Order: sequence, then structure tokens, then C-alpha cells
Amino acid sequence: MFQGGYMGKVLRVNLTTKTVSVEDLPEKIARDYIGGAGFGVKYLFDEVPGEVDPLGPDNKLIFAPGPLSGTSAPCASRIAVTTKSPLTGAVGMSLSGGYFPVELKFAGYDVLIIEGKSETPVYLHIKDDKVSIKNAEKIWGMDTQITQTIIKQDVNDQNTRIACIGQAGENLSKMAAIINERRAFGRKGVGAVMGSKNLKAIAIRGTQEVPIADPEAFAAARKFMLGAMKESPVLYPEFSKLGTPMVVDATSAMGMFPSENFRTTGEKDYSTSIGVEASTSRNKGNEHCYGCPVGCTQLKLAKGKRYEGGMSDPEYETYYSLGGVVGVENVDSIIYNDMICDKYGLDTMSVGVTIALAMELFERGLLSEKDTQGFDLRFGNHEVVTQLIEEIAFRREGLGELLCDGSRVMAQKIGGDASDFAMHIKGLELPAYDPRGAKAHGLNFATSYTGADHNRGYAFQEIFGIPVPQAYDRFAVVGKGWLTKWNQDIRCATTDCPTMCGFLMDMALPAIAEQNTADLVSSASGLVLTKEDVGKVGERVNNLARVYNISAGFTRADDNFPKRIMEEAIKEGGSKGQLIPEADLEIMLNEYYDARNWSQDGVPTREKLVELDLPEAVTLLEKRNML
Amino acid sequence: MFQGGYMGKVLRVNLTTKTVSVEDLPEKIARDYIGGAGFGVKYLFDEVPGEVDPLGPDNKLIFAPGPLSGTSAPCASRIAVTTKSPLTGAVGMSLSGGYFPVELKFAGYDVLIIEGKSETPVYLHIKDDKVSIKNAEKIWGMDTQITQTIIKQDVNDQNTRIACIGQAGENLSKMAAIINERRAFGRKGVGAVMGSKNLKAIAIRGTQEVPIADPEAFAAARKFMLGAMKESPVLYPEFSKLGTPMVVDATSAMGMFPSENFRTTGEKDYSTSIGVEASTSRNKGNEHCYGCPVGCTQLKLAKGKRYEGGMSDPEYETYYSLGGVVGVENVDSIIYNDMICDKYGLDTMSVGVTIALAMELFERGLLSEKDTQGFDLRFGNHEVVTQLIEEIAFRREGLGELLCDGSRVMAQKIGGDASDFAMHIKGLELPAYDPRGAKAHGLNFATSYTGADHNRGYAFQEIFGIPVPQAYDRFAVVGKGWLTKWNQDIRCATTDCPTMCGFLMDMALPAIAEQNTADLVSSASGLVLTKEDVGKVGERVNNLARVYNISAGFTRADDNFPKRIMEEAIKEGGSKGQLIPEADLEIMLNEYYDARNWSQDGVPTREKLVELDLPEAVTLLEKRNML
Repeated sequence: MFQGGYMGKVLRVNLTTKTVSVEDLPEKIARDYIGGAGFGVKYLFDEVPGEVDPLGPDNKLIFAPGPLSGTSAPCASRIAVTTKSPLTGAVGMSLSGGYFPVELKFAGYDVLIIEGKSETPVYLHIKDDKVSIKNAEKIWGMDTQITQTIIKQDVNDQNTRIACIGQAGENLSKMAAIINERRAFGRKGVGAVMGSKNLKAIAIRGTQEVPIADPEAFAAARKFMLGAMKESPVLYPEFSKLGTPMVVDATSAMGMFPSENFRTTGEKDYSTSIGVEASTSRNKGNEHCYGCPVGCTQLKLAKGKRYEGGMSDPEYETYYSLGGVVGVENVDSIIYNDMICDKYGLDTMSVGVTIALAMELFERGLLSEKDTQGFDLRFGNHEVVTQLIEEIAFRREGLGELLCDGSRVMAQKIGGDASDFAMHIKGLELPAYDPRGAKAHGLNFATSYTGADHNRGYAFQEIFGIPVPQAYDRFAVVGKGWLTKWNQDIRCATTDCPTMCGFLMDMALPAIAEQNTADLVSSASGLVLTKEDVGKVGERVNNLARVYNISAGFTRADDNFPKRIMEEAIKEGGSKGQLIPEADLEIMLNEYYDARNWSQDGVPTREKLVELDLPEAVTLLEKRNML
Repeated sequence: MFQGGYMGKVLRVNLTTKTVSVEDLPEKIARDYIGGAGFGVKYLFDEVPGEVDPLGPDNKLIFAPGPLSGTSAPCASRIAVTTKSPLTGAVGMSLSGGYFPVELKFAGYDVLIIEGKSETPVYLHIKDDKVSIKNAEKIWGMDTQITQTIIKQDVNDQNTRIACIGQAGENLSKMAAIINERRAFGRKGVGAVMGSKNLKAIAIRGTQEVPIADPEAFAAARKFMLGAMKESPVLYPEFSKLGTPMVVDATSAMGMFPSENFRTTGEKDYSTSIGVEASTSRNKGNEHCYGCPVGCTQLKLAKGKRYEGGMSDPEYETYYSLGGVVGVENVDSIIYNDMICDKYGLDTMSVGVTIALAMELFERGLLSEKDTQGFDLRFGNHEVVTQLIEEIAFRREGLGELLCDGSRVMAQKIGGDASDFAMHIKGLELPAYDPRGAKAHGLNFATSYTGADHNRGYAFQEIFGIPVPQAYDRFAVVGKGWLTKWNQDIRCATTDCPTMCGFLMDMALPAIAEQNTADLVSSASGLVLTKEDVGKVGERVNNLARVYNISAGFTRADDNFPKRIMEEAIKEGGSKGQLIPEADLEIMLNEYYDARNWSQDGVPTREKLVELDLPEAVTLLEKRNML
């Protein structure tokens, strides 16, 4: 029973017809999917057929915070956007934080669905129940930082929070992000979908309070969570002082910080040049998301002639994508290049890995001097990274056009053996963990519904040695199928749906995450959810997303690794000798599918879908004769 | 008699002792100086001896909006900062607009005096009566745009308005500006004074209303002013659509848009390459200051590979300083370079003219290849302009160090004939009007108390042909002394002190400016000021500032022109053949001093000072045996 006051409103905006409507969110959806990615996957499944062109008017953008966003629950200012990804063709779901997420709740909505396509540039302005589609011709062409400044002026309210695209999204780069403040809905080309709809920005200001169904129980749950956070061995002061860049040192020591397009992982020691000591020397203070007592985001100021004055807050992944994987050991260039990716609205991860591919192909002679227009694509050339980011953002003729849709498209365009060196899964470029050095972490890349995505099932057991639900050998193969399922479901249920901060839930609170989510969500929303119910939500979303991807054409063959991961062993360092031969992948996949009660083709069984109460998924697979 | 409620508060902050105090503003000062520049000059005269080192702890920064700022009087959101200028050594007074000016009033203050010097970087945070000096170490080194974003987060209030310095001010460049939003207290190195005090920013939020002494009379005066604005032939739609860049075409047609360090003025037609049509083609919309119905600021987005994505709002002066005077005909580079000057906190005008000097000295062989470190300093090389702005902002060894204190210092360092080509008066670089083509406009540069400053006595009679108080031939010499005095006094009284927008008062309302000011200021403040009282204020401030400059060592010899203006006639175009030979300067100066009742040495007479009720000025000159 809903007691959460306004909880349960879906705001729907059609950009073709310029109509705005508000619907009730069915209580069943709220209970079965909780919020965030759950709502996103459910609405995508119901409303966007798997065959739809991701950059056509029939694709939709589904924004959903969670039931805890905007409450006093710590670390819950997160919001998911779900769409059919133009980069992967699969479910594209991406989360962001900051202050934008809570404004939608303060305005009275749990879901915002954007559909259709405007003929001319527009932006959406939501102020409580006043929703308007405004002319954005004057801001079209502007970067994300200026866009936010101007819209705040335009709506005459500095407290309005804005998510927008930069030039990369306008130019339909499949690596385009949606940026709010300096944060990003980074991956899977969600910015290109926004650009394809001629939607420059979404500006939101809400003035309502998020009601709490059972304030006493909520206060108790909140107190418990804050207490657990204080007891975490890493959260204070380490993580709050150092943020994610501290992971550079950890993965370097483990020999799984990828460098030079994964060909030299473990050979070089990036922990000295761009590790936490180097990056922390540029620190100027930290930033918080709404309601977060940790504040892990570290603002950094670049030094040195070329990058002096550059200011940004690169996360761990960016030390890899604009650092190690392109062979760059200049920490200032990473800060600067991170800043311009934010400005242009680009995913630093896909951009860096795609540039790394260009560098390897250049060194191998698969890209000629003529192709590269005089750009010197040596690994380690941080100046050319800056140049290529601009080429990509503006989809410039030549290298810009070649790189701007990511490594898969680029390799296809070049042909020959190029695809062998493209480090992506399902089109999504690999994150900053060499799968060869942590097998469950890798298997999650191979199987997660968004492609090679570390955030859909982070194997903290392997990376941080946290023994929950038990300890695991990171090199072992057997047992990783089961573990990956567990990681994906708990991550989805306690992070992506409620929506809570993944860092916290994975790194500090995994042992209590499900109970904690159940207590907080129940007391806040008035839904009665047990720990077991929460667990099921994660499994439900992962199954529904899998069926969606099947409808979009994905098969077991897409649950794979780049050739290099399966054929070249790591040569040096803490993961020396490791690789994932095809036989090992098959063992892990078989175990994973078994653990999920999916067929060996990777198709969910009727039994599992019925258990999860997913008749829509049964119907879809029946129509295709796949059950 | 004060009826204006809180009017009359001076907030004094000592950064050495970290003390904050509030004093009453004496009614006599309010009446005799009105506000803004008037308050600034008065407090500077009383508290900062003329011999003080501008970058030492004894200099002060005096911020003062006017009695109309924060009221509903249109176009009054202006604030003056007054200090001893490190660039000129004279009174340094600079005004800015936007939203920052009114916040000080909303917080309850008419004047903010900053004195002393902090040992470590700090910023000042004013929230009504809560005033605190905060640690700014984490933002030291950051550009002005990022600084504003971070402070808003730091104080957790997006409506806080901030004036700050960028890297140029930190590095004590004598061309450093103070930036609020993208606006500037641009000239005279006021940003370096802030930097010398280790003061990164001033953040203000006020929540009080500015009381109106006689609401009925005020409403009538306001209505009258708005009516007069509507009747102006240029204000709507032209000026509100095109902004100051429209002046490029006007002065080009008159043959007085300076190019290539003033050596080719009138030969080239910049009105096609960077004139209003070219610049307007980049328009993306306009911005308003608080309470302004005109909104003349035109946001522009640069196009073309190198500058794509650059966004700024260059004023007319910048089309000259980063365009004509450096021989640049690329409008996109002007937008981009204007943006980075704002970011680093630099005065575009002084920066451009100083670069122009470097270019001329390079072409003449006075700067060698070795001096220029491989920079290609040809006129027209817009890329090198971008590079030099960075060298200057960071005071980099070599050209950065050489250029960053302006053209006077640079020429002195180089020696030889270099000073002959330095286009400054009293150390302040010339504005975008060739003095040879408009003699009163030029005489104002030569005599205004801040150096070559078009804003202290704009000769709209010569530039726009507005026949107030009568029509003038712009080439004529006789009569210009009197006219310059008139322009300086009315500008000071109706623009710099009240504080109103100079564009309006000069270009649209000069015939009614004094009466308008008297009516608005009297009804708002409760002071009873006649049109004649207002006129006297302008004269009083100009006299007191003159005596201050005398105490700082200035003499008649400093009321001069660069050698080129006096010795080279304009070769082509609408001002062909014009120059200001020394004899003409003497004629104009003599007439100007006579009109002011000053001695032929340029020293105010006792009679004039007594008439203006300036006993402090009498005392100062008596002590020096100058009366």
C-alpha cells in the first residue's frame, strides 16, 4: 500500500506532438522494480521494441531516480536513464549523481519518459507541475558548462538543476554522454539519443518535500546505515579523501591496470606516474552529491604549461582511459582531457579506449599516415589525445568521423584484422580492469545487460578482497558463474534500483545491503519489502533486460571477450600468465547460465520467468519460439 | 535627511587582522558623492596616501554600488571598485554590472572596504550581517568560472553572487581583472590588487529589500526614465539586439577603428571581417544585468575548427583589442580569446594592446627571435594571440613575464625606442577610438583620472553625433577643452556615481541625465538633490581624483598622447590626414584647465576646491606648496 504521498507519478513528454501528460505509476511496478534502473528496464521493455533504431524517434529516454532520492537517506541522490543504446544496440542504462536526481523527486515525479523527436532544438523545463518545452536554438552548439549557466539565467533560477548534452551529443557521437554539473550519465551513448531528439537539456526545479511513510522506522534504518558507514574500514578517511583514484594503485599492484590497449597490462607501473599520490598532489577539495556525508569526488587542478588551469574531477576509470590505456603517464593531461570530455559531453572511457585502438592500429600500420592526417598517434602522446577528443566531439571529417562512434564501428570501417584489437564487449569499451586478472569481474563484463560494464556486477570480492558472501581467488574459474549472478543481482537490487551509491553498497556495506535497502525503501515508500523481495528485484531486472536484449538480436555468442583477452596472456606483473582461453569462458558461461536457470543458449527458462512474475517476457520469447 | 532605511552602512574587512566592522556612512559623503565611483574616490583619498605601493598591504579595495542599485530603477545594477592602480599608479576605478552589484545592497551595505593582506589565500563570504573570511587554498589556482561554481557549492547557495580573480590576478599581472559571472571590473589591474591581498573572491548574498524613501516620486521618476528609453532612436531594437559590437561599423566608417597598433587605422576595413554582421552571425541570445530591460550583452558561439565551441560575449572594445589592433580579422578567434581572458581574469583591452606592441616591436626588430621564443608575432596571427594570453595569465618566463604588466612596463624593460610605440596614457592602454579622429574623445583619454579611459568622459557628440549640449565637429580642436570637462562631469555624476549604465546615459539619455539622476536618487534615498547638486558631484569627484593623482606624482606632462598620435597622421579612410600635434594638445589642455579653473600646471585652484567644499584637497596641496 502506498503511503509515500506523491510517490507514483510518471511524467511523459512527447517531443513530436509537444504534449505533456502525467500518469500514475502502477503500484506493482513500484514494488517489483523499486525505482531507477528497474523502472527504466521495465518501461523500455514495454514501450520500445527491441528492433527500434536507437537514434530514431521511436526510442525513448526513461529517467528514474529511486524511492530514496530526495529523502534524508544517505548517498541516494542517483538517477538512472534507460534507453536503447546506439553504441551497443542493447539496453543502455546509465546513472548519474549530484543534485539533479533529487530535483525530479522534489518536483513530484518518479519517472520521466521522453519520447518522439522535436523538429528544432528544444529544452525541457520542469518546475513542479509546470512543464514546458522551450526553444533551445540559442544554446545549440554550446558546451555543457555554458549551457547550464545560460539555462539557469534563462529560467531566472540559480537552483534549477540541469542535465544536458554538449556538442558530441548534438553530433550524434555514439560515445556522447549526458552531463549534469560536471557529472555524467556517461556511457552507452545516451547523449546521442538526446541529440537525436533535438533535446539539448532538461532543467528541473522542484519545491516539494519527499514524504516518508513511516518516519520512525525510516529514522532507525537511516541511523543504522550511517553507523555501518562509520564502521567501514575504507570509507573514512581514505575513500572520502582519495576517492576512486586510489584504485589505480590497487589494480596496478594486482597487475590488472590496463595499458596501451591492454597489450602491456602489468608491465609498466602507472601507480607512480598517475597513481593516487600523483593525482592527489593536484587535489583542491572535494564535492558532494546531495545528502552524501562522504564526498568522494576530488576536484583537481592541473599544473604545467600545456594543461595549467585545467580543472576537473577524474574518476579511477579516467586514469585508465585517458591515461594507462593510451599509454599516458602525465597526470595533468588526464585532468585537462577529462575536463574537455565533460565540456563536449563525451564518455571518457569509450573515448580513451577508442583512441587506444587508433593508436595500436597506427603502430601496426592498419591506419596509414594519410588516414591519420598528420596526427602523431603514438601511445603516450597526451597532446594528440586532446586533439582527438575535439575531432570526435565535432565529428570532424577524417579521424573525427572515424572514431566518434566507438571502437566497434571504427574497426568495422577499417576492416581487415582491426576488430581483433577493438577492446569492447557488445560494442561497449572495456572498463579499467583487465578481465584476465579477475575472472568474475571479467565474466560480469561478458554477461551484463549493458555490455562491458563494471557497474552492473562489481566483483569486490576479487578486487578488494571483501569476503562477502565468501572469499574468492581472483584467478580461479570455477565458482565465478555463480558469483557473477550474485554480484549482478545484489548490485541491481541495492544500488541501481533504490537508487543508492554503488561505491558505498559494494565497497563498504555489501553484507547488509539487501536488508538495508529493504528497511529504507519500505519505511520511506510505504511498500512492504523484505530482504528476500529486494533480492528478487535484482534478479527480475537482470532477466527482463536479458530478454529485451534477445529481442534486439543478442545471443550467447555476444557474451564474449575481445580476442586479446582470450589469446594473449598477461606478460608481467601481479597477473602474469593470466588469460581467459575460450574453454574457460565456456565453463564460466555454462555455470552462469545454470546459476540463472537459463538455457545453455543463454535464454531465460519459462520456469525462471514465471517465478519472477514476468509474463511479458514469456510472451515475447514464446512468439519467437525460444521457450 | 536619510529616509532610505539601511542606506549608510560601510562594511570594513581587514585581511591582516581578520577583523570585520560596520560603520555609518556619513550623510555628507552620501550627499556630496552619491555612490559608486564617488564613494570610491572619497575613501581612497582619505585612507590611501598617494605614495602607497599599489600591491602592498596599505592599498585598499573600495567596492561601492549606487543608491539606485537594487531598486527598481532600470539599468542601475552597477558597482565601482576603487583602488590605487598598479598599472597606472593613479586612481584605479573600474565598474562592473550583472547581478553581483545588487547583492551588496541586498545584504545591507553601501560600501565594502577591503584592507590589509591575508597571509594565505582566503575568500570573503557575506550573507547579510554574517561576514566571514574563509580558506581559499583549495580554489587558489582555478579560473574565474570554476571558482564561482565551487564557491556556490561551498556556501551551498546557488544564488550567491561572486566576484573573483583568475590566475592572472594571483600572478599579480597588472592587467588582471576582477570577474563576476562573465563580466569584468576589467581595467587598471584591480585584479592584481586583489591577488596581492591573497583574496581570491568575494561572495555575497543579501536578502533584504532596498527601501525607497518616497515611493510615489520614485515611481514617477522611474516611469519617466523608461519612457525616455523607449523614445531613444538607438536603444530598441538596435542596441538591444546588436549591443556594442555595432560600434565597429560606426568607427570603421569614421576611419578611427585602430588597427595594427594604430599604424594602419583607417586603411583596412574591419567592418566586413569582424563588423556587426560578422559578429552577429555568431549570436546565440542576449544576457541582462539585474533590472535591465535592454539586455545588450550578446552571447556568441565561435565556429570553425580551432575555435569551435568557444563561447563569450565580447564587447566593442574587444573587437579592437583582440581584433583590429593586433591585425586579426577572424571573428571566431575574438570570441574564443575573449572567453579565455575572462577565465584567466584579464582585461582584454590592455592585453590586446600590449600584444600589439610586442608585434610591432617584433616586426621592427626590437624584439629578437630569441626574445620571442619561437612565437610568430606577426600582426594578424590570431593563434599567437591565444598563446600569449596564456603566457601572460601564468606570468611565464620569457614573453609572459615581459608582457604581463602592460605596455608601459614592457617598453621600459626593452628600452631603446620601444616606448615610442607603446599606446598608453598614464600606463593605461588606449581604448578602441583613435584619438586623432575625435579630439574631445582623445582629450578625455589624456586627462581622465584613470588614464586612457573612454568611460570617464565619452564624447558621444563626436562618435554618435548626438547634439547635446550642442553639435561638435569631431576634428576641431577649439572648444574641446570645455566639452571634455562637460563630458567628464556628467558621466561621473549620472553614470559612475549613481551608479547607472553608461551606455544608456551617454547614448540614449544625455539631455535628461542630470535631472533624471536627481529625481531618482532623491526619491530613492531621501537625500534632497537638485539637478545642479548632481552636476557638482561630477565636478567634485573629478577634482578630488585629480588632487589624489597629484599626490601620487602626476603632473601636466602626464596629460599626453603616445608619440604616434602626435606625429603620424592617419593615412587613409574617414579620418585621413588627422593627427594631434603637440601644439594642438597644448591648446586643448589650456582650454580644459581653464574650463576646470585649474592652473596651467593642471593643479586645481583654491577657489575651485573651496567652491566644491573640498578642504581635504586644499590641505593636501597646501602641504606641497602647490596652491
